[in-house]
Amino acid sequence: MDFSSFLTSLTTSFVIFVVLMVLFAWLSGKPGNKVVYYPNRLLKGMDPFEGGNYASRNPFSWIREALSSSEQDVIAVSGVDTAVYFVFLSTVLGILVLSGIVLLPVLLPVAITAKTATASSNTTSNGTFSDLDKLSLGNVADKNSRLWAFLIATYWVSIVAYYLLWKAYKHVSALRVAALISPEVRAEQFAVLVRDIPPVPGAQTMKEQVDSYFKSIYPDAFYRSMIVTNNKEVNKIYEELEGYKKKLVRAETIYAESKTTGKPEGVRPTNKTGFLGLLGEKVDSIEYYSQKISELTPKLEVEQKATLRDKQQAAALVFFTNRVTAASAAQSLHATMLDTWNVMDAPEPRQIIWTNLTIKFFERQIRQYIIYIIVALTIFFYMIPITFVSAFTTLENLKKYLPFLKPIVNIAAIRTVLEAYLPQIALIVFLALLPKLLLFLSKLEGIPSQSHIERAASGKYFYFTVLNVFIGVTVGGTLFATFKEIEEDPNSLLTVLAASLPGNATFFLTYVALKFFVGYGLELSRIVPLIIFHLKRKYLCKTEAEVKEAWFPGDLKYATRVPGDMLIVTITLCYSVIAPLIIPFGVVYFGLGWLILRNQALKVYVPSYESYGRMWPHMHLRILAALVLYQLTMLAYFGAKKFVYAPFLVPLIISSLIFAYVCNKKFYRFFCCPALEVASHELKETLHMERIFRTYVPPSLCSEKVEDDRFEDALSHVSRAGSFA
Amino acid sequence: MDFSSFLTSLTTSFVIFVVLMVLFAWLSGKPGNKVVYYPNRLLKGMDPFEGGNYASRNPFSWIREALSSSEQDVIAVSGVDTAVYFVFLSTVLGILVLSGIVLLPVLLPVAITAKTATASSNTTSNGTFSDLDKLSLGNVADKNSRLWAFLIATYWVSIVAYYLLWKAYKHVSALRVAALISPEVRAEQFAVLVRDIPPVPGAQTMKEQVDSYFKSIYPDAFYRSMIVTNNKEVNKIYEELEGYKKKLVRAETIYAESKTTGKPEGVRPTNKTGFLGLLGEKVDSIEYYSQKISELTPKLEVEQKATLRDKQQAAALVFFTNRVTAASAAQSLHATMLDTWNVMDAPEPRQIIWTNLTIKFFERQIRQYIIYIIVALTIFFYMIPITFVSAFTTLENLKKYLPFLKPIVNIAAIRTVLEAYLPQIALIVFLALLPKLLLFLSKLEGIPSQSHIERAASGKYFYFTVLNVFIGVTVGGTLFATFKEIEEDPNSLLTVLAASLPGNATFFLTYVALKFFVGYGLELSRIVPLIIFHLKRKYLCKTEAEVKEAWFPGDLKYATRVPGDMLIVTITLCYSVIAPLIIPFGVVYFGLGWLILRNQALKVYVPSYESYGRMWPHMHLRILAALVLYQLTMLAYFGAKKFVYAPFLVPLIISSLIFAYVCNKKFYRFFCCPALEVASHELKETLHMERIFRTYVPPSLCSEKVEDDRFEDALSHVSRAGSFA
Repeated sequence: MDFSSFLTSLTTSFVIFVVLMVLFAWLSGKPGNKVVYYPNRLLKGMDPFEGGNYASRNPFSWIREALSSSEQDVIAVSGVDTAVYFVFLSTVLGILVLSGIVLLPVLLPVAITAKTATASSNTTSNGTFSDLDKLSLGNVADKNSRLWAFLIATYWVSIVAYYLLWKAYKHVSALRVAALISPEVRAEQFAVLVRDIPPVPGAQTMKEQVDSYFKSIYPDAFYRSMIVTNNKEVNKIYEELEGYKKKLVRAETIYAESKTTGKPEGVRPTNKTGFLGLLGEKVDSIEYYSQKISELTPKLEVEQKATLRDKQQAAALVFFTNRVTAASAAQSLHATMLDTWNVMDAPEPRQIIWTNLTIKFFERQIRQYIIYIIVALTIFFYMIPITFVSAFTTLENLKKYLPFLKPIVNIAAIRTVLEAYLPQIALIVFLALLPKLLLFLSKLEGIPSQSHIERAASGKYFYFTVLNVFIGVTVGGTLFATFKEIEEDPNSLLTVLAASLPGNATFFLTYVALKFFVGYGLELSRIVPLIIFHLKRKYLCKTEAEVKEAWFPGDLKYATRVPGDMLIVTITLCYSVIAPLIIPFGVVYFGLGWLILRNQALKVYVPSYESYGRMWPHMHLRILAALVLYQLTMLAYFGAKKFVYAPFLVPLIISSLIFAYVCNKKFYRFFCCPALEVASHELKETLHMERIFRTYVPPSLCSEKVEDDRFEDALSHVSRAGSFA
Repeated sequence: MDFSSFLTSLTTSFVIFVVLMVLFAWLSGKPGNKVVYYPNRLLKGMDPFEGGNYASRNPFSWIREALSSSEQDVIAVSGVDTAVYFVFLSTVLGILVLSGIVLLPVLLPVAITAKTATASSNTTSNGTFSDLDKLSLGNVADKNSRLWAFLIATYWVSIVAYYLLWKAYKHVSALRVAALISPEVRAEQFAVLVRDIPPVPGAQTMKEQVDSYFKSIYPDAFYRSMIVTNNKEVNKIYEELEGYKKKLVRAETIYAESKTTGKPEGVRPTNKTGFLGLLGEKVDSIEYYSQKISELTPKLEVEQKATLRDKQQAAALVFFTNRVTAASAAQSLHATMLDTWNVMDAPEPRQIIWTNLTIKFFERQIRQYIIYIIVALTIFFYMIPITFVSAFTTLENLKKYLPFLKPIVNIAAIRTVLEAYLPQIALIVFLALLPKLLLFLSKLEGIPSQSHIERAASGKYFYFTVLNVFIGVTVGGTLFATFKEIEEDPNSLLTVLAASLPGNATFFLTYVALKFFVGYGLELSRIVPLIIFHLKRKYLCKTEAEVKEAWFPGDLKYATRVPGDMLIVTITLCYSVIAPLIIPFGVVYFGLGWLILRNQALKVYVPSYESYGRMWPHMHLRILAALVLYQLTMLAYFGAKKFVYAPFLVPLIISSLIFAYVCNKKFYRFFCCPALEVASHELKETLHMERIFRTYVPPSLCSEKVEDDRFEDALSHVSRAGSFA
């Protein structure tokens, strides 16, 4: 890629960005769009704009609002997880800014004034050697004493990273403490999840066994237990019923509308009862749905009773009357064998994966390892198409292998655009295919909570992106040239990676720029959700609930967002010394990201769970992994440059590992399990244990005319449990 | 070593054994020796012999008594740890017996009838090829289909091992449950050890801080805390005082004796006050010591008060009023940072290492890694002298390098004895030097309890013996011949090991025989303690206390005994298929060991601590390590035999690893921390919390006229603590 196509790419991206910003300024001012641009505020019952009307609003006031919002605002509106995500963004931003302040003014002059450059440089990109490469480490000759400056720069970046990561970990710990210490009652702090309950001996029911077990261990603090039941049947009926209820409301709305438009008596809507409403007998919708509902309601009640009584499974939620006992029970070994009575802290009600709760201990272990193997294979085999695409989508190759494209490609304008975008687009498309698969695989592991599944998927996605995209593209781009070399000595992979780094710098510069200009432009302007919402409202939605469903914004989607950012962290860190010009791009990515996502977090997205910052240790570890990869790359690169002082980087790698070890030891356990000193703080409200208990009852089991004694079957009460102990 | 020297060695060992047994039968009958042969029974106030007098006793009745004793007897007399040690012995015995029953009748005929033997065998011991080697796998030709029998035998041994180890782990778990569930009050079940207490803020004392911290978390169950103090000064004074008290008793005894022997007024003993009682002024001992005691007693009291008040350190013992809270507190995270308020279960009072309690969290980590490095270096560098000794102490080499020994060595009798014993004695001497060093190093790690130190030392010793003795001797014996080979390709170590195994079989046969005949002979007859006791009683001991000290038997010394047994396990397993003749030797070792140690456990040794079988997971893991080493060796050996089906052993190695993983996951955690369902059982006795608390007060702080309020300084009471909370 030469300099002009780089500039073209940058300019095009920027133009798209400006267009999207203008669109946003225009569209977000329209009152009809406020459900797309301010859904979070609307759902919270707040005024979309802080004290202003729609028309007279400054289109850039969102920037001021984002900048002036405090961390507490974010926590209040969007939860601790979102605040932790901003800590991540600002930490990386800090690392890049502090690195850039030193590296840019020092390294660029050192690189550009290195006269011996082009001749002795051993980069493999001689063919496309451009002005950009003159600003990189590739321009410095082998064994040159100027390499010292780059070596010290490597140290500087690392030390800045240690310092800011340490501060960030402390800060996130404090955020987690503040959230967990809060005097508000949070149901999950009073419950534990019990799995691997052994088979019931004799005539007892599962519930009686659980109650007597926990009552004997916690005679004072035990409140009540809820046995996990097999809800497959009841869920099916419940969903059918809910579906009919929605359709009934819809039919009634249509009927009411028809009264206002034409005939005063209205047109009663009809539907067909057969396959997908296309076949079968034509019936009056309102009557038909009402009849279905009155048929299903008693059926649901019968099934609810049967489920609670007969479908108890070997897992339960146990509720305690104080937080310390729950926190301490979640960390303690209860039975002598670990594969029975396994206790852990309960997830929030909204993020429990009920079907995973009943998977047995060793089955979970086996599933986990099988999934690891599958993911490893996926990572490995995904590399092959990506490598091919990346090598294939250079124009030279296109012309060579697809000669019929030659006339098109030779048109200057198309040529430049293609050259600028082809590889990046290929990459982005490839990456879009994977997250769903990884989420699905992580769920199969048997993890009991949604947030944990997203963390697990995010981890897998990180290794995938770093291995395939970063290493794959870098090495892949030069693979055909150096394939023999690797074949002869597989250990030379790192050397090949190092040697091909400067040649790929512009590729990644473009990639980062594309990500922030187009990615964040689309993010802020919400063009796609906007169009979808308007289409849905116009042609599909009839009832209020349907309209609300159409604009409901969803959450920040950490499972894909974080690994995406992590890839940029890895790229920017690894190139920070080799091609310092990437640092400003990284700064813009994380700066713009912080600004735009702050707006989105405050006004758009609605978090679907709260894990109180449990994502942080994963982010921290992956930033460190990127740092170690960077240090290893630099070591290999200095080695490739025949710089005899390259081993001076070894202590740096060791200190990274020690840093990771110390952080992990000191902070990590608090992110796994609740600390008792935090749980022991007093509550503000008086405790309604029954209300806590109710939040965990699945909706399909929780009918309107619920009677307390109905829950006695699987959801026992302490007063009865006492008689079994 | 040829066959005749092997027989000589065996015969000599057996003769020594018979002599020692006769000595035991004779000496143990004498009433004056009962303190040497029955100290445990005497200390428990039991009759040394069950319902018999000394003279008319059958000298072999101890065998009947040992065989008829049940596991419950052992637990009652010597504790769970000893019972677990017998589980270990009987498990290994079971593995060897079940293996031997199948392997001996099958493999010996297969090996001996392999005609192609000597010619094509590639063992390196052709020079000393003996009749014994004909019974081994070395006698079977390369690629011979008879190797199938040996391969299946490898599977058989492993499957037997899995089965018996699984049963043993379950059994030991049950023993641990039974011990911990017991309704007797055990002080350590009510206490937790708190380390890394953060610096005291403001005007509080350390004790106030600890009390208010735990009172707020456990308002109901917290009883009292005991801050660890720096007892260096007070211990010094206390020991001095105790020394003078002993000397006073001794002087009074001498004075009383002198009255009976000669003059009726007696001779008042005197001593010199200077260096070691050799220099200085001559004084009347009774007066001098009485004066010293009356000087030191108030000094001790002052120092006790000062220690409790001013020398409080950042560690404490915290007592709870019920077992469940203590058990659950020991497993829970208390503070958000792991390096503050670190809580674990309290060790027994008698095994606390007080000086290790105050070492800080990260210092412990650092110490641990430094010790690991030192131990690794020790293991590595010990190999060098052992290898030399083992290579040097063959007679051929002695003659070669020390030609002046030739005339002596050439005498047939001396030659045979030397040839039989030299290498084994060198080995035993070398091994005797190490345990103290390893115990010392383990203590430096900062481990808070004696039993844990012994486990840690035992682990280190195991790796040492296996690496140095087994691999060192095996490879070392052929090292000079094959040194070049290893130098060229370090990976061939396993192949060299495999190839040299059959040649070293007789060495290890002799080693095992020496260990059980001489080792267990000495163990049972207790010749050395007997002689020392009689010498001491005759020439040194004057008072009753001194006599008791002279015969006090000590404990079983797991730190050296277990790794010693483990070495035999490793040797026997590794040779079980290669030279099945070793199996009967192993059976005799563990059978005889079981019998003799049963006697010693019931009648002699007094356990110095009780860890409720925590040694077992270590033993289990090391037996499995030996098993994997055995499987790897067999794989390499079949490879060296050019047997194409050798890879059939790979699934076996994988299944060993899975077995280890499953056992570890299922059982191990209960051996680390108490299970709540066990702790929740009810107590028989009423609880005297103050008595529990007192058992932890170090003797130097526990004066006779103790007043309760004195302990208020470092050993706080709940009633006062309440006011700080």
